[in-house]
Amino acid sequence: MSALEQTVGARLRQAGLTVAAAESCTGGLILKRLTDVPGSSVYVLGGVVSYANSVKERVLGVDGGVLAREGAVSEPVARQMAEGVRALLGADVALSVTGIAGPGGGTAEKPVGLTFIGLSAAAGTWVRRFVWTGDRAENRRLSADAAFRLLLDFLDGRL
Amino acid sequence: MSALEQTVGARLRQAGLTVAAAESCTGGLILKRLTDVPGSSVYVLGGVVSYANSVKERVLGVDGGVLAREGAVSEPVARQMAEGVRALLGADVALSVTGIAGPGGGTAEKPVGLTFIGLSAAAGTWVRRFVWTGDRAENRRLSADAAFRLLLDFLDGRL
Repeated sequence: MSALEQTVGARLRQAGLTVAAAESCTGGLILKRLTDVPGSSVYVLGGVVSYANSVKERVLGVDGGVLAREGAVSEPVARQMAEGVRALLGADVALSVTGIAGPGGGTAEKPVGLTFIGLSAAAGTWVRRFVWTGDRAENRRLSADAAFRLLLDFLDGRL
Repeated sequence: MSALEQTVGARLRQAGLTVAAAESCTGGLILKRLTDVPGSSVYVLGGVVSYANSVKERVLGVDGGVLAREGAVSEPVARQMAEGVRALLGADVALSVTGIAGPGGGTAEKPVGLTFIGLSAAAGTWVRRFVWTGDRAENRRLSADAAFRLLLDFLDGRL
């Protein structure tokens, strides 16, 4: 267990907020790390691993036209994933990740490592863009870390 | 990455089947491990981490009366979680886990470590019961391992 998910957990508990997540390339890693912390059931509601585009559409309500036009790894899809899982689970705050973890799946326009991290709350939705340069496991770890940092920035009033 | 999820992945690919999972106590670990394998997007659709009972009900369609009567950690809830996520995602086969990972949450009747693992497919639904005696991380790992073994038993025609 890393210090990051413990800090996130302590801050969520302090703020009295519940969290959810919609994960594509991280495949469950964010929720796994959130629930590594004993007692996390107080603030973790759960989430959706939307690995296939069909799950992004039918479970999270991501717009099929946006998926076709922008691709699954895009700013608007990260935004809609975060907003969709927040509404579906009734969470106070929701995280989302969509990216290309590698080794396959990269293109000239969208290289391996390209990742969008979203956060949705009552006050609005924020999305950050990254391009990681590690291997698959490293890129997934960095994406989860970045999601936790985005959440801490939100909880600390820095967004 | 352990050999188990690589074997599961190779067998799913061979059989041309898609998989989904509904996770409570494992909190995303099963989906994380399935998607640790490069190329897993061919057979992993995704899943739902239903940590809170509200998510079991509103997303997976678990019956509220059964949850109240039997408790979240029970055979019928594991069954309904597997069947619910399979229907929701349109997967060929679905896994589910509900248990008490610890250190808190145990009672005389339902001790820490009690875990039900489900598998749903077109042919039917199967549930296995375990009582792990490790710590939180170990119990979660053993639950994921048991889910992968149940899936291999299904794929190899042993159920």
